[in-house]
Amino acid sequence: MADPQLHPTVEATATEIASMEVRGAAPIAAAAASALRAQAVESTAATPAGFESTLRAAGRRLQATRPTAVSLPNALRYVLQRMDGETVGGLRASVIRAADEFVDRLDRAQADLGAVGANRLRDGDRVMTHCHSTDALACIEAAVEQGKGISAVVKETRPRNQGHITARELRDLGVDVTLIVDSAARRYLGAVDHVLVGADSIAADGSLINKIGTSGLAVNARDRGTPIMAAAQTIKLHPDTLTGHTVEIEMRDESEVVDSETRAEIGDIAVENPAFDVTPPRYVDAIITERGQFPPESIVTLMRELFGESVGEPWEEPTGETE
Amino acid sequence: MADPQLHPTVEATATEIASMEVRGAAPIAAAAASALRAQAVESTAATPAGFESTLRAAGRRLQATRPTAVSLPNALRYVLQRMDGETVGGLRASVIRAADEFVDRLDRAQADLGAVGANRLRDGDRVMTHCHSTDALACIEAAVEQGKGISAVVKETRPRNQGHITARELRDLGVDVTLIVDSAARRYLGAVDHVLVGADSIAADGSLINKIGTSGLAVNARDRGTPIMAAAQTIKLHPDTLTGHTVEIEMRDESEVVDSETRAEIGDIAVENPAFDVTPPRYVDAIITERGQFPPESIVTLMRELFGESVGEPWEEPTGETE
Amino acid sequence: MADPQLHPTVEATATEIASMEVRGAAPIAAAAASALRAQAVESTAATPAGFESTLRAAGRRLQATRPTAVSLPNALRYVLQRMDGETVGGLRASVIRAADEFVDRLDRAQADLGAVGANRLRDGDRVMTHCHSTDALACIEAAVEQGKGISAVVKETRPRNQGHITARELRDLGVDVTLIVDSAARRYLGAVDHVLVGADSIAADGSLINKIGTSGLAVNARDRGTPIMAAAQTIKLHPDTLTGHTVEIEMRDESEVVDSETRAEIGDIAVENPAFDVTPPRYVDAIITERGQFPPESIVTLMRELFGESVGEPWEEPTGETE
Amino acid sequence: MADPQLHPTVEATATEIASMEVRGAAPIAAAAASALRAQAVESTAATPAGFESTLRAAGRRLQATRPTAVSLPNALRYVLQRMDGETVGGLRASVIRAADEFVDRLDRAQADLGAVGANRLRDGDRVMTHCHSTDALACIEAAVEQGKGISAVVKETRPRNQGHITARELRDLGVDVTLIVDSAARRYLGAVDHVLVGADSIAADGSLINKIGTSGLAVNARDRGTPIMAAAQTIKLHPDTLTGHTVEIEMRDESEVVDSETRAEIGDIAVENPAFDVTPPRYVDAIITERGQFPPESIVTLMRELFGESVGEPWEEPTGETE
Amino acid sequence: MADPQLHPTVEATATEIASMEVRGAAPIAAAAASALRAQAVESTAATPAGFESTLRAAGRRLQATRPTAVSLPNALRYVLQRMDGETVGGLRASVIRAADEFVDRLDRAQADLGAVGANRLRDGDRVMTHCHSTDALACIEAAVEQGKGISAVVKETRPRNQGHITARELRDLGVDVTLIVDSAARRYLGAVDHVLVGADSIAADGSLINKIGTSGLAVNARDRGTPIMAAAQTIKLHPDTLTGHTVEIEMRDESEVVDSETRAEIGDIAVENPAFDVTPPRYVDAIITERGQFPPESIVTLMRELFGESVGEPWEEPTGETE
Amino acid sequence: MADPQLHPTVEATATEIASMEVRGAAPIAAAAASALRAQAVESTAATPAGFESTLRAAGRRLQATRPTAVSLPNALRYVLQRMDGETVGGLRASVIRAADEFVDRLDRAQADLGAVGANRLRDGDRVMTHCHSTDALACIEAAVEQGKGISAVVKETRPRNQGHITARELRDLGVDVTLIVDSAARRYLGAVDHVLVGADSIAADGSLINKIGTSGLAVNARDRGTPIMAAAQTIKLHPDTLTGHTVEIEMRDESEVVDSETRAEIGDIAVENPAFDVTPPRYVDAIITERGQFPPESIVTLMRELFGESVGEPWEEPTGETE
Repeated sequence: MADPQLHPTVEATATEIASMEVRGAAPIAAAAASALRAQAVESTAATPAGFESTLRAAGRRLQATRPTAVSLPNALRYVLQRMDGETVGGLRASVIRAADEFVDRLDRAQADLGAVGANRLRDGDRVMTHCHSTDALACIEAAVEQGKGISAVVKETRPRNQGHITARELRDLGVDVTLIVDSAARRYLGAVDHVLVGADSIAADGSLINKIGTSGLAVNARDRGTPIMAAAQTIKLHPDTLTGHTVEIEMRDESEVVDSETRAEIGDIAVENPAFDVTPPRYVDAIITERGQFPPESIVTLMRELFGESVGEPWEEPTGETE
Repeated sequence: MADPQLHPTVEATATEIASMEVRGAAPIAAAAASALRAQAVESTAATPAGFESTLRAAGRRLQATRPTAVSLPNALRYVLQRMDGETVGGLRASVIRAADEFVDRLDRAQADLGAVGANRLRDGDRVMTHCHSTDALACIEAAVEQGKGISAVVKETRPRNQGHITARELRDLGVDVTLIVDSAARRYLGAVDHVLVGADSIAADGSLINKIGTSGLAVNARDRGTPIMAAAQTIKLHPDTLTGHTVEIEMRDESEVVDSETRAEIGDIAVENPAFDVTPPRYVDAIITERGQFPPESIVTLMRELFGESVGEPWEEPTGETE
Repeated sequence: MADPQLHPTVEATATEIASMEVRGAAPIAAAAASALRAQAVESTAATPAGFESTLRAAGRRLQATRPTAVSLPNALRYVLQRMDGETVGGLRASVIRAADEFVDRLDRAQADLGAVGANRLRDGDRVMTHCHSTDALACIEAAVEQGKGISAVVKETRPRNQGHITARELRDLGVDVTLIVDSAARRYLGAVDHVLVGADSIAADGSLINKIGTSGLAVNARDRGTPIMAAAQTIKLHPDTLTGHTVEIEMRDESEVVDSETRAEIGDIAVENPAFDVTPPRYVDAIITERGQFPPESIVTLMRELFGESVGEPWEEPTGETE
Repeated sequence: MADPQLHPTVEATATEIASMEVRGAAPIAAAAASALRAQAVESTAATPAGFESTLRAAGRRLQATRPTAVSLPNALRYVLQRMDGETVGGLRASVIRAADEFVDRLDRAQADLGAVGANRLRDGDRVMTHCHSTDALACIEAAVEQGKGISAVVKETRPRNQGHITARELRDLGVDVTLIVDSAARRYLGAVDHVLVGADSIAADGSLINKIGTSGLAVNARDRGTPIMAAAQTIKLHPDTLTGHTVEIEMRDESEVVDSETRAEIGDIAVENPAFDVTPPRYVDAIITERGQFPPESIVTLMRELFGESVGEPWEEPTGETE
Repeated sequence: MADPQLHPTVEATATEIASMEVRGAAPIAAAAASALRAQAVESTAATPAGFESTLRAAGRRLQATRPTAVSLPNALRYVLQRMDGETVGGLRASVIRAADEFVDRLDRAQADLGAVGANRLRDGDRVMTHCHSTDALACIEAAVEQGKGISAVVKETRPRNQGHITARELRDLGVDVTLIVDSAARRYLGAVDHVLVGADSIAADGSLINKIGTSGLAVNARDRGTPIMAAAQTIKLHPDTLTGHTVEIEMRDESEVVDSETRAEIGDIAVENPAFDVTPPRYVDAIITERGQFPPESIVTLMRELFGESVGEPWEEPTGETE
Repeated sequence: MADPQLHPTVEATATEIASMEVRGAAPIAAAAASALRAQAVESTAATPAGFESTLRAAGRRLQATRPTAVSLPNALRYVLQRMDGETVGGLRASVIRAADEFVDRLDRAQADLGAVGANRLRDGDRVMTHCHSTDALACIEAAVEQGKGISAVVKETRPRNQGHITARELRDLGVDVTLIVDSAARRYLGAVDHVLVGADSIAADGSLINKIGTSGLAVNARDRGTPIMAAAQTIKLHPDTLTGHTVEIEMRDESEVVDSETRAEIGDIAVENPAFDVTPPRYVDAIITERGQFPPESIVTLMRELFGESVGEPWEEPTGETE
């Protein structure tokens, strides 16, 4: 289904993303931006309109590979909405500049984010974590590097116990770790200074989509007066939600919850295993990004600034409904 | 250390409780009340004062066997505070009557409680459970027997997964069961009509002491507008709390939370495994007992009515500070 | 279906209640207590057991007439649970005394209640009302008689506009009245000192069952910091709820909501017209009764004191499950 | 009072708005923007300053016709704050472009808004409505067109029963409708997935000004955990509120609340009939606009972006206090 | 105005209370109970009715001395509602017994209360105090005597700085004290385990009347998840409130707030100095009394048990409206 | 340590700020902007890069004088992030324009802010104040000038009683003043229409840092339904908090809390005297600035717009981490 207009790099990148050779939010985003850059550099379009059309086609090709990924459309939106110029040369330069900016920023995003999050932590603070998030860990790591003593209460995070990974990585940073079952969280909330979680994605209405259990934890944190912060690079901002789309919650296999033998012993029951839940913004104090911290209610402004405010998608061919 | 005054049944019962031959809240309570009855029947005391003193001695002997059990002092308090009369005969009759009342009531307490709880459920209701509680299950069973269709969302209840037992028993009652991890509770709270839990004990200030995770669940249930009821026979009312004592929370072995191999892989961390937590009364709508339903804030009145309002213990010898 | 044992007054009263010649909570209660008294006075029972059995039969006969009325079982429970004695004479005297007490108390209940409620009002207070309740109005009337200046914001109370009756009666008391639509309540809550409502019934868990709209008003009153009191004679306490029964909410005819012509114009829709709703106790500050004021969470204690704490009904013949 | 500088179209438009020949938020806004466009097209101003001055005069003329309308100043602000250029030609082009943009956007605003709102609804959702709002209905209509099954609980919305119109229009869309009185809302909130309302206007502090009863409904929706969304085209954003102005609430005629006969029967009372109330942003989850969805706390950013951030009005002649 | 029937001790006691020779809640209560006892011992009444009438007259005489004191009517109510008997001898014995019980209990009430309150404190707990309350201090003192290490954050409690007294007395107990201004309380609430206050009086609806600032502190404690307990002997339960009476808040002299010189400098302003405020029961976790601990919502039951449930006062002569 | 590149005005300004000859948020900010302007005007830099480098050096010199002041970096950020141009001339013009804009705006900021705040007040409103804030008073003054009748409840604001100053200044404006102790605030909250405070600074997460006691007041205002607004010029927005930095709370001398004599009498205690506290955005309704009003959750957008969104400081020499 290769499009003759498209640069081989675009095709190659699309294939790698589709086949999951390239995976993970940041690598996908970087690959997509770079593919657009390659397309721009080598485009033989004769007219500005042709150039734009080719770039949009490249965008469509890339977007089609993983329509539910969050970082992919963000990369495309970032670059395509900065495509601007009166001439092919001007357009090309604008795409190259935008793609470079995007990739540069992405390269140091986790470090920048970690520095921001670390600034919210004080020496001696005790942090409660849920699941495993490299963005969240980057905050603690940066705090430790600043010389702050940090300790952690780590929830095991059923069903997949990613808390074990978090515990080990924190331990390796020299953080004092206490591991607990998820249900014990409320008992410890009065004795921690922060709840710190990552994000699967963040919606335009300020909702935090994250590992199942985050919302219940956040409600209890608010009830106990414990502040809660979510660490999320801006590639986690969910562009579809600008137009009201809700985020589909993945239902994972029941075997993560109960092994087949136990299942058989219990008898004929259903097992449901939602991977994520949705935390309303009123239960979250701050979203930590590489662009600084934000109350969740204002994240929509950052989302529009970075990824465009149009109701449509920038890779669609314009009809009468231009912006 | 046998006391010559004490009837052999008292000694035998004390031994059985101490050795955990008799175990479980109801069996312990029934055995203790019956032992007091045996002591009363066979007492050779010549004076009312002597009779009373012997009965209190029996009470002390029994209480000493398991000083942290909740149902044991309740049985003793129920009987001894109803010991009343001017003559040995009158005192004996009062003890026999009280012990019989107590045991009779106890025999049918779970059935009576189940009937009360079932009345709060309507045909078609969906109930969320936490842990495994025979009192809670008695409510659902009675509702099913009334012909009501009930379905259930069952939390697995880490670390010991007692939710598996609950799931099986509900399944056996013909209840439609959906099993979830504990962290998924909030997602399902909007779709259930009741949260129904048991109780390890209930305090005079209305707090519910129950399996770890109950308090976090209750806070979320309140936040979502889902009513929460706790099923608890009155032998679960905690007499020490009348005088302000707090309930000590058992810390269980870490091996329930993480196996030793995983523990070793993670490295040098602490694992904490509290068995219970404390839910303030403002998050619970009703306590279901065999004496009817009560808002948690009024349970202290029932506790005083059944088990005595004195600040001291009824098995202590009176000093100047008698009630 | 007349029972030969029963006194003609019992039969006559039963007929009058069934045919709604006697109607209204207080008249029904008074008639039922008086019928039991008549039965007691004229009983020819030869044995205490026979006397008790006859009285219970009278209770069953009366209760069967209107099984969903609240005040009827309260009258029967009040009298029958005070039936006590070793001889027929003693039993008779106890029933007469209890019936007289009940009727005497009932006669002055609204006045006593009004005095209690009036004491919560201060000179110059502004009160918001919902629906029409003679108990609630008795509080304002008593306050006016104490010389206090009271003004009122009266909700019209759709669909039947009982607020118009309230407005007129308050106007007749010399109260300054502002009539509003129900939806305007929140706007005025910051400018009133009390919300004052009546009660259809009150449940053992402290819930207030009252005219549809009460619960939404109460939630807003709490949100605005305005105290809310409910005026309810103790015959409104709902005995079935002690055993967990929920109160069935009457669905009334749709013609109260929309006339048939408009209905036809709109087309094929459903119209639902629930008469009452349920307000959880945490949104109500005080229940005003003729026995004094109570937080809703403690009303169960009064209910048990007045109408019995047994799980069964006092007019049932005892089986093995006596209290 | 015609100003010789002003184009006849401006005068004609002003007259039509003043006389209410042109009415409704969108038609007024479109007419005002078009009038400014006409003024720009035909302006004979010799200097940039003269051109700008003429356009501002046209703005003042139009604004004076209906000083309390919300959409009128938004149209003027949108166009005038985009007036930019070094030459008369440049200024003219900028005004034409801004007016065209504004009118184009306005033409499809309700459709765009409907698409955004529809994305928040899922197949099978049940929606509660208050009053009658074409913006809100556009969301449901779009959802139905997407093939989603939607049902509705429609509040009648006293005093003018606009809920009847909503019920009919939803019925015509094939939506399953249940009509209730306003006071019954809380009872149904646990069984609906969304509360969906329109907006009279939206303030810079995130407050929603809408039909009386909205705020009380929103407080109850929050208490029950039901999300609430408000559909509002951006011409409903209230520019005066940027500078702290509060929105004056219209008090309507009492005859809407009670007919004169009933009024006379009740006696000497006041009747108050506020048309709108104010819902604080913490009770609203999302504002749905044609530019996407926003948490109410961030709407001020959109307001400043579209309609200018200056503390003064763009049609005023600049004094020393220019922006 | 001496009543010939009254015993000289009654007159003497009345005079001492009126002249404030006897002052303080406990001494007044003890003196009043003792005076009734003296009246009973020496009464020459020939008939039971005469005896009762004399005792009521004594009650009226005593009550008239300080009509706003709380403990005085409690003493009278406690004794007079336990006056019971068929003969003068029986009545006399009942009064003597009740007066002795009351005084005995009163003598050890603060110690008993302290023991109850101490049981809620754990070794290492940090307590925040407001104002100066010997009942509250008794709890800490008992905890210290139990060997628990307790530290305290002491609010200075403007305008009279009673916190300085509290600080000194705690210091003398060996408690580690941090003194703060009242406004700093919220900052320290996250770091304390309990808020512990006394009570001026407690109302039947569960409200706590205490030193100005208590309610604001309690609201913040609830918001931060810090439990709050109020220490109050049962003589602080306010009998008038059973019948709905509200507690009048004393307005004290402005000179406590601002000295006259500063006052003059500021110019013509009002200064208001309310001595107490009212904390609703939902912000208080437990009332600590010498009879045990209670949720505030259930205190009405204790009040009725100790001081009578009649709507009238037990010292009034019965009219037709006897209880 | 003078830098040869720097203009003498920069050096002089730096010295004056460091020595506190120039003090107060606005004077410092104006001086800093003017110094940058002077540097730009007289810069002899030959290249754009050299010009920029010199300006950044001036920024560093100024910033180093008072690293914890809030307004100083805001002035530097405002000017330096608007430094833009291809030539030295263009850069110079941009700096001059930005500095002039900043100073012009600053000159009328308090008046503009006052006008915005006044618009939120209505004739007859009663306002509660905390501490002394000229920004807050500017709102009341403007309202009075608009002819509105305003009255005030003024908290004394221990420990330094700045409420006395507020009382006097309001009195001078003709405002009716009632002075209260801080602890009495809750009692009066139901009777005021607004809480109006100033700000020490405002953080990117929407937190309000203000005089100790503000947060406790705000929590109570929310609980009572009283809106709270904070008046803060945009120079109070705290730039460090964009990158997660928390605001260090100054601990002041204990002698402000208790005089040394009283301190000695009390004995060995600690006295803590934090100057400020932190109010989360959910307790504040609006931030009033000279740029209009904002919900606190959206203030980050204004902060980024005015003072730059970069994670780094604009006076730092760029490394690889350019924006």
